[in-house]
Amino acid sequence: MGELSFIGMGLHDENGLTLRGLDVAKNADTVYAEFYTSIMPGLSMDRLRRLVGKEIEILTRKDLEEDAERTIISKAEKERVALLIPGDPMSATTHVALLLSAKKHGIRTTVIHSASILTAVSGATGLEVYKFGRTVTIPSPKTSPVPESVYEFIVANKRIGLHTLALLDLEHGRLTIPEAIRILIKLESAKRTGLLTEEALMVALARVGAPDCLVRAAKARDLVKGDFGEPPWSIVLPSRLHFVEAEALQLLAGAPRELLEGRE
Amino acid sequence: MGELSFIGMGLHDENGLTLRGLDVAKNADTVYAEFYTSIMPGLSMDRLRRLVGKEIEILTRKDLEEDAERTIISKAEKERVALLIPGDPMSATTHVALLLSAKKHGIRTTVIHSASILTAVSGATGLEVYKFGRTVTIPSPKTSPVPESVYEFIVANKRIGLHTLALLDLEHGRLTIPEAIRILIKLESAKRTGLLTEEALMVALARVGAPDCLVRAAKARDLVKGDFGEPPWSIVLPSRLHFVEAEALQLLAGAPRELLEGRE
Repeated sequence: MGELSFIGMGLHDENGLTLRGLDVAKNADTVYAEFYTSIMPGLSMDRLRRLVGKEIEILTRKDLEEDAERTIISKAEKERVALLIPGDPMSATTHVALLLSAKKHGIRTTVIHSASILTAVSGATGLEVYKFGRTVTIPSPKTSPVPESVYEFIVANKRIGLHTLALLDLEHGRLTIPEAIRILIKLESAKRTGLLTEEALMVALARVGAPDCLVRAAKARDLVKGDFGEPPWSIVLPSRLHFVEAEALQLLAGAPRELLEGRE
Repeated sequence: MGELSFIGMGLHDENGLTLRGLDVAKNADTVYAEFYTSIMPGLSMDRLRRLVGKEIEILTRKDLEEDAERTIISKAEKERVALLIPGDPMSATTHVALLLSAKKHGIRTTVIHSASILTAVSGATGLEVYKFGRTVTIPSPKTSPVPESVYEFIVANKRIGLHTLALLDLEHGRLTIPEAIRILIKLESAKRTGLLTEEALMVALARVGAPDCLVRAAKARDLVKGDFGEPPWSIVLPSRLHFVEAEALQLLAGAPRELLEGRE
């Protein structure tokens, strides 16, 4: 009897795998991995292969979408197939579609969860996880028009006291933190809610979950000049801060005290 | 030089630890664990001690709050201390406060992330992780008055097309799924937005991340009669569904087709 397991690799490198995930991968007949929905800068395929004890084939978007039926699914009908995915699996529609396709073929499926930037951001910044609203992705202007909806979602969150995690487009010509902030400021100058100006407090994050994770809270105008090293990158647009959150942004992200005053 | 590491244990049992987390715990001089912010029904302290290779002291809320300065912090000034926490650490204000206190004492701190129900819920239901709004916790009516704000947050999410994850109070006399749904329906009959009636589609979840994880999508009036086995429990209040989400709720959660029609 076949099986298809979706295994989260968590953050940064192969050590983000859970003990459960490693065990399932070790017991699989075929192990695949994909890195197009996210990246894991510290991951070494050699170390990952040694950990799992077998060959690991890296799949492309095409393998997982157009070609899934005749490769992954038909294999998983006969044997145990494991698919290693950065972060917590099932964050991309592609994976959900593949899971549903497996179910329709009567294939047993398992999802092994691991860490995700969506909750890790809270540990990295000290901002309360229950005060985050909808997460947004800022697309690269190279492929998409300026995304007004992104601005509107952030503003809608802010207005009801919620922080926003903004992920930066990875797939189509990596969007940097300064580029993403400039996009938001440009939208602000068109929309003029006053909530995402150059004076607004923003938090830049790079390599969350890695030993050299960088978290910096400052005015947008200052972050635009920053260099944050290698991706993955993201930005947090904080709303009203509880005093513990304000203190956390000072201690964990170097926020200037005067930026936080009167915000609590 | 001392150090304080916050290590997420992920979901269900000790195998939710990441390889990185296990490694840090093995290298610590003192290892603590706490289970009052969440529970891990499959976890065995014996197996956890064997994995980590040393004694593990279980801390109470009092240990982590009132007594933290003179126990955890003073120890972490001199040696490597690891604190094992269910889920992704730093979801509770207690942990953030402890991290900030360590920083103020000049103690090196590390956060090792793992899986959290906040993103695992998306893998379990097939609902898009980017379409979840703010998460709420439904308190037990044994200790708190009926929480109108919970109802308002859910309705605010629904109105802008966002799903809500509602966690159920664990600490003060476990709130069951039927009890939580009855609280919401009672609030609906006072508030009358029409969004959380007995006819509303809801998703009941038990033991997410465990092999016997249960996910059931049905009308509130049917879930109220259900038995979902052991905790942890939670509820999802879906908003508008994309057709892949509707299909996922049928295949993964047994949602009746007629409930989903016209919702896309």
